[in-house]
Amino acid sequence: MYLEKINGPEDVKVLSREELKLLSGEIRDALMNRLSKRGGHFGPNFGMVEATIALHYVFESPKDKFVFDVSHQSYPHKMLTGRKDAYLYEEHFTDVSGYTNPEESDHDFFNVGHTSTSVSLASGLAKARDLKGDKENIIAILGDGSLSGGEALEGVNFISELESNFILIFNDNDMSIAENHGGLYKNLKELRESNGTCECNIFKAMGLDYVYVDDGNDLEKLIEAFYQVKDIDHPIVVHINTQKGKGYKLAEDNKEQWHWCMPFDVETGKSNFVMEGENYATMTCDFLMKKMKADPKVTTIVAAVPTNIGFTEDKRKEAGKQFVDVGIAEEHAIAFASGIAKNGGKPVFATHSSFMQRTYDQLSQDLCVNGNAATIIVNTASIYGMNDVTHLGIYDIAMMANIPNLVYLAPTNSEEYFAMLDWSIEQNQYPVAIRTPCNGVIHADGLKVDIDYSRLNQYQVNREGSEIAILALGDFYQIGEEVAKAIEEKSGIAPTLINPRYITGLDVELLEKLQANHMKVITLEDGILDGGFGEKIARYFGPTDVKVYNYGLKKEFIDRYVVEDVLKENHLTPEQILEDIGV
Amino acid sequence: MYLEKINGPEDVKVLSREELKLLSGEIRDALMNRLSKRGGHFGPNFGMVEATIALHYVFESPKDKFVFDVSHQSYPHKMLTGRKDAYLYEEHFTDVSGYTNPEESDHDFFNVGHTSTSVSLASGLAKARDLKGDKENIIAILGDGSLSGGEALEGVNFISELESNFILIFNDNDMSIAENHGGLYKNLKELRESNGTCECNIFKAMGLDYVYVDDGNDLEKLIEAFYQVKDIDHPIVVHINTQKGKGYKLAEDNKEQWHWCMPFDVETGKSNFVMEGENYATMTCDFLMKKMKADPKVTTIVAAVPTNIGFTEDKRKEAGKQFVDVGIAEEHAIAFASGIAKNGGKPVFATHSSFMQRTYDQLSQDLCVNGNAATIIVNTASIYGMNDVTHLGIYDIAMMANIPNLVYLAPTNSEEYFAMLDWSIEQNQYPVAIRTPCNGVIHADGLKVDIDYSRLNQYQVNREGSEIAILALGDFYQIGEEVAKAIEEKSGIAPTLINPRYITGLDVELLEKLQANHMKVITLEDGILDGGFGEKIARYFGPTDVKVYNYGLKKEFIDRYVVEDVLKENHLTPEQILEDIGV
Repeated sequence: MYLEKINGPEDVKVLSREELKLLSGEIRDALMNRLSKRGGHFGPNFGMVEATIALHYVFESPKDKFVFDVSHQSYPHKMLTGRKDAYLYEEHFTDVSGYTNPEESDHDFFNVGHTSTSVSLASGLAKARDLKGDKENIIAILGDGSLSGGEALEGVNFISELESNFILIFNDNDMSIAENHGGLYKNLKELRESNGTCECNIFKAMGLDYVYVDDGNDLEKLIEAFYQVKDIDHPIVVHINTQKGKGYKLAEDNKEQWHWCMPFDVETGKSNFVMEGENYATMTCDFLMKKMKADPKVTTIVAAVPTNIGFTEDKRKEAGKQFVDVGIAEEHAIAFASGIAKNGGKPVFATHSSFMQRTYDQLSQDLCVNGNAATIIVNTASIYGMNDVTHLGIYDIAMMANIPNLVYLAPTNSEEYFAMLDWSIEQNQYPVAIRTPCNGVIHADGLKVDIDYSRLNQYQVNREGSEIAILALGDFYQIGEEVAKAIEEKSGIAPTLINPRYITGLDVELLEKLQANHMKVITLEDGILDGGFGEKIARYFGPTDVKVYNYGLKKEFIDRYVVEDVLKENHLTPEQILEDIGV
Repeated sequence: MYLEKINGPEDVKVLSREELKLLSGEIRDALMNRLSKRGGHFGPNFGMVEATIALHYVFESPKDKFVFDVSHQSYPHKMLTGRKDAYLYEEHFTDVSGYTNPEESDHDFFNVGHTSTSVSLASGLAKARDLKGDKENIIAILGDGSLSGGEALEGVNFISELESNFILIFNDNDMSIAENHGGLYKNLKELRESNGTCECNIFKAMGLDYVYVDDGNDLEKLIEAFYQVKDIDHPIVVHINTQKGKGYKLAEDNKEQWHWCMPFDVETGKSNFVMEGENYATMTCDFLMKKMKADPKVTTIVAAVPTNIGFTEDKRKEAGKQFVDVGIAEEHAIAFASGIAKNGGKPVFATHSSFMQRTYDQLSQDLCVNGNAATIIVNTASIYGMNDVTHLGIYDIAMMANIPNLVYLAPTNSEEYFAMLDWSIEQNQYPVAIRTPCNGVIHADGLKVDIDYSRLNQYQVNREGSEIAILALGDFYQIGEEVAKAIEEKSGIAPTLINPRYITGLDVELLEKLQANHMKVITLEDGILDGGFGEKIARYFGPTDVKVYNYGLKKEFIDRYVVEDVLKENHLTPEQILEDIGV
């Protein structure tokens, strides 16, 4: 086995072309080993095996610098840069993250998990190189799906101004996570079909030199192309046509399903993970399908992550023109939704909390300054969401809830979530964002659920008590229930338990009333405390005698955490809270 | 005079071609009348006179819908849609804003002031039209400078998917605010020089149909072109080559200077506004020029607003390769800066607080997750900044200060600002943002100014007192001084006066100590209270006996305000504060 002996790119360079080909097979075996047992990004890595070998064969990493976009295709790169054990041996699986990571290796330059950033990041490396008078190659590896993102397009437009070495490997597998969207993909198709020769060329139209490699999984051709551009004195695009999922028939045939996988049986491809019971993706899709069928003005919008809200290919087809995947283009998505609302449509845009970060200004300017009644579903906005440092869903309250005019809602159970969603779609007064619960599908179970949320900032008192009031927001409502129970059991005091529902405003009337017979107020929120909901309560009670205890998460970037540990570190167990408040 | 009789587009349609030409002269006179007396956007409006007349002549506004990008070129449109008096008569100048505004007219669909949004917003109008089965024309008017922005590129890529009527008027005057930057502008030049015929075409590469109008100030040609595309059944780009500042020689000759103007003498072009004394733009430029000369690794980056930090054309030339204008591309700018820092450069990026909103995710992911030591200067981040609703600078604390790893600094005087800037450029531990003071150039005047800010979150106690502590952040430090003085005068109590300096963290040691002999803490900050600095102090003291009073601005969108009024409405006068805290 060659892979076992590779401890760095120098061990790749000594192999013959024949041995490199055998190595590519071994890399795929190692990918299969890890992915079938642990899960991760499948298609992107299987497609990039040959290109990664060729890159390390031709260039001198880490002097020459690779920047992988999203970096979900960087597993082969990791294998060739001293981290092969994390793919070969189960006991080393946790040695590496799913993305490039400078803490793991000098061959990685950035922690990257969001799309469309590689060209701009790499252009900064190139600029610093030029300022210092250095001479290394700077290589950005960008996928076709990522090109539709605003940051990538800004970066591609910019690099021709560098007038120095910059190599953009454009990895075109004719897929985003799902299919691509937008006019430039017609041009990529023309380029592939004309073997890179058609006159109209998106890269040349952005001022760039260009070469095409028709088979991006052909080692010889790639090596030749990379030698051709090595040490070039100006920016150039190397457009390589790769096959996503290459080497595993099931993945080649069903690219969307095999973009990412849970542990699976290699023989059958069947996932070992069985989704049991209800889930919000399917339920949200069913709900929106029903709304769309009842009213042609309802439109569902996603940005390249349709299954996030259950829109698998069949559902997308069924929804027809009322379903729009804008591709990776969240900025466009929010402005588009605002425009739809302005002209009498009923737009619903959904994406992950972490990806919502790409569209702050559009939320503020295009949507909220204009006060248009779009509905935004914020997914995986929770400590219970994705736990990679680049995909954390715990910052959206701080980011979104301080934008004027936005009504941001935090449901505490499934019935409330859908009631809020229904109200939001049908009203035409406010831009509304709703956090999808992330702590499992919990039902109202006797709790009253309103259907009308147009009287803003009216909190719901689910249990009237005294002395201590608990304001438990969204996903942490259930912790609030536990705390209430624990307080009563320990002290005999029956606390007041409140579901605030509205993240974006204070129920001043209720807070004023609480002062009469409550000396302590506890807030709970599933997000960072800085800039969050609890601090607004603390501000309100600042000049009063009421003591306020804010519970939530510390403002920090955390990586691959265990939820229970994070909760404990943030004093979020009932025992800890009782101790803090002196009960 | 024709203009006096125009109360809506119907009054334009009845004019002969000859009369329309006379009208264009009258519109320029009216522009000159308002702009010379009141100031505003000059070049964009003078260049769009003929195109605007032609648009209203050919299309049926407001059934057909125009969406102007940035909308700083919408003055002629306002004149033709019932708002001529605001340009003809001084007593009506305040009737209109400087941007499109749905509250002013049914012919305006969005409050727009940020760049690069028109295509996405208009595509939403088009989508809703299609969902409802309506048939009107949707027309976006986009300038060449705006095309480099990520949202515009996402939008242009998207629209070919509409497969229905969409007209993109691409107003190419070969200028951004300053000169354009990026490779696509080479293609636009080729298109202009080939009369729109060159094969490689950025718009066609994005899947769009395309026509070219060689003289965008020729009424006849424009009318013909617009008739040609009216009621078209698919998206099309009408590329018109206009002259920025057309009709005023000085503006035609010096496009950058005449993008926007203060009141001026029509004869000489000389501004009636004389900048007296020191200003931060010039001082910042001088400081950065010195730093760049001393160290070739220092790079100044701007995004299309170079004079924001004093970089006029001569200074840009002088700085050479160490100065980079990325064009309208803030997302790219921050990632670029992160890359430069990673590879050993010393990047400084500056833009307005309001435009920083376009790059939230890059601040979070590209910069702060990676902890690279870039310096960010945040301009006009203040109630004393720009007062249009689309350009408010009072949200950056809520937006930026809650991002982990970022060190956000608020200087209280000029010496402190430059000391912070100098420290930030030379350190390599943290991403640092600094708010440029906005309440005039105030000097330290005996106050101690540190040179090293590497011990994070250490507040500066400028005056030790008791009972009441005032934490006065950044631009509101001087209000803090006034409040301290007023308290002492009225009650004899000498309060403690603190300059927090760090927006992003708490000086826990100091806050702990304050509790010993302070019962009241006042916070002051020049930004919205929600998500801001004061709430963090309120959270800290929440469980204690210390009373906290947070002062800052209400979370709201305000438009064309008078600073003194806003301060009063937010209880920010010393008298109001004393009354609130019971002194």
